[in-house]
Amino acid sequence: MKGTVLYGPGDIRFEDREDPKISAQTDAIVRLSATCVCGSDLWPYRGLQPIDGPTPMGHEYCGIVEEVGSAVKFIKPGQFVVGSFATSDNTCPHCLYGYQSSCMHREFMLRAQAPFLRVPQAEGTLVATPGVPSKDLVPSLLAASDVLGTGWFAADAANVKPGGTVVVVGDGAVGLLGVLSAKQMGAGRIIAMSRHEKRQKLAREFGATDIVTERGDEGIARIKDLTKGIGADSVLECVGTKESMMQAIHSTRPGGYVSYVGVPHGVELDGQQLFFTHVHLHGGPAPVRPKLIDLILNGAINPGKVFDLALPLDQVAEGYRAMDERRAIKALLRP
Amino acid sequence: MKGTVLYGPGDIRFEDREDPKISAQTDAIVRLSATCVCGSDLWPYRGLQPIDGPTPMGHEYCGIVEEVGSAVKFIKPGQFVVGSFATSDNTCPHCLYGYQSSCMHREFMLRAQAPFLRVPQAEGTLVATPGVPSKDLVPSLLAASDVLGTGWFAADAANVKPGGTVVVVGDGAVGLLGVLSAKQMGAGRIIAMSRHEKRQKLAREFGATDIVTERGDEGIARIKDLTKGIGADSVLECVGTKESMMQAIHSTRPGGYVSYVGVPHGVELDGQQLFFTHVHLHGGPAPVRPKLIDLILNGAINPGKVFDLALPLDQVAEGYRAMDERRAIKALLRP
Repeated sequence: MKGTVLYGPGDIRFEDREDPKISAQTDAIVRLSATCVCGSDLWPYRGLQPIDGPTPMGHEYCGIVEEVGSAVKFIKPGQFVVGSFATSDNTCPHCLYGYQSSCMHREFMLRAQAPFLRVPQAEGTLVATPGVPSKDLVPSLLAASDVLGTGWFAADAANVKPGGTVVVVGDGAVGLLGVLSAKQMGAGRIIAMSRHEKRQKLAREFGATDIVTERGDEGIARIKDLTKGIGADSVLECVGTKESMMQAIHSTRPGGYVSYVGVPHGVELDGQQLFFTHVHLHGGPAPVRPKLIDLILNGAINPGKVFDLALPLDQVAEGYRAMDERRAIKALLRP
Repeated sequence: MKGTVLYGPGDIRFEDREDPKISAQTDAIVRLSATCVCGSDLWPYRGLQPIDGPTPMGHEYCGIVEEVGSAVKFIKPGQFVVGSFATSDNTCPHCLYGYQSSCMHREFMLRAQAPFLRVPQAEGTLVATPGVPSKDLVPSLLAASDVLGTGWFAADAANVKPGGTVVVVGDGAVGLLGVLSAKQMGAGRIIAMSRHEKRQKLAREFGATDIVTERGDEGIARIKDLTKGIGADSVLECVGTKESMMQAIHSTRPGGYVSYVGVPHGVELDGQQLFFTHVHLHGGPAPVRPKLIDLILNGAINPGKVFDLALPLDQVAEGYRAMDERRAIKALLRP
């Protein structure tokens, strides 16, 4: 088969790779119906995160099970499954506490921008849908593989409650699905920070009640204005830079909650400064073992709307370019 | 009157000062029954926190109201009151959310190591006891002015729940009262990190089930051993150094809770490292508007045991020395 490999900054190649094979009896092989490019893929693509030689890419996927190892009982060939960017046995103490992305047997997935994928710990990592879903549901089910669960975790970790005031910092796919998640959780007011017209529009469609275009100190001042000087109850930091983190922390009221779900790059927090903000802080790799599938199947949510570009898999390099240049929010790839 | 002034590292003087007077109609003047030295007073005493010229000291106090401003209705002369290290109107939005130490009208108290004290925002800051309590209750009521509420907030911010596994980093008065608070909240296991025999003993008396003497990486390894490799549910960081903060964070299970209640000194948190620990983090100046007075008056708790040294106020310099040299856990001062 062919698969996606990053050779260096801006250098994505779709090239011959070995077909994946069962290598442990807890593995499954999945023939992918769709995969995509993640905002986090852009860090190494932009040269902002070093890579150690040619690196196979991709960690979001859904598709039809081809084959399973002998220890896999509840996932069967022919089923449609959605997986997660982090494998999990779903039985260890960390998994049982709901932190599957810190599973004691976690592996971070790679190689999903390809037609076939080996998934370790298949039984804990994959979730099967009741039947094979119609094609129009595939983008939303693919979103459940990472970006929807990450937006959901952002809202959950920021303690979004019915009636609360929520700020979302970041208008990428995760931020937009943070808006959708906050709406599902009953937030009273959802302020999306975005200066990009198309993303503002989708944010409003997902439930944003206000748009703030200012950033940094001006953005913080604007949030304070909008909250009578108090600050927001819940702030979702969905970028991962120092600026966005500071913007999030200082937009929150004392006793309020800040979540952060993008891998921080160059973020140092001064303990004393954080202390006096009085905020709660929680984040990390989102436990995205797919759980919102029912909401997708019954049409309650349509997170697949974040895919505003769909390409054949062999044009994956264009998907990276379009996201890098912010021409696309998120690029879906069809094998 | 005479009061306590810090002139520089190690230089505490008890010297003539002006008598406090009502300066705003929301003030009260309190004749102190007892005051004390705080662990946080040791930072400037040790020269680890700069001071801007001679600095009056003290922020823990209880005593009899002498006089009140015309706007003070519910606090009356003759009442016994306990105050907080941070003034609060107890009516602003931050106060109503329970974060009185971030009150929009907050002032940090100073000057309490003296016989008389002016308390701004008296009605929101002071809590009166039902009558004048007996002398033997004064140490515990004094503890309610800061150190008990800070230990309680540490346990609360670390989400201590019935049956949970709790670690307390720091065996000062705050850490010890964190143990007491965790016990009150029903923790199943309370591991105190201490290598000081007298403090270990008091920790056990307050409810510690285990003592760990190791620190740093060895301390973390010991906590992992004691929790079957999982880490603790709740970790209370009651020191304020980088080492203690790292020890707390890495002793916590993914999804667990870390609180920090001492003003951090030299603490920088690496965002990426924090991200992958998956912990919740909450702290800040504890909202200690006294609230545990009933438990003290009915004898359920005896937090005053942290005062293992009592001195006449004019020997305040010896109180600082004894705490600096760790000869005393906490020094009570009687005007």
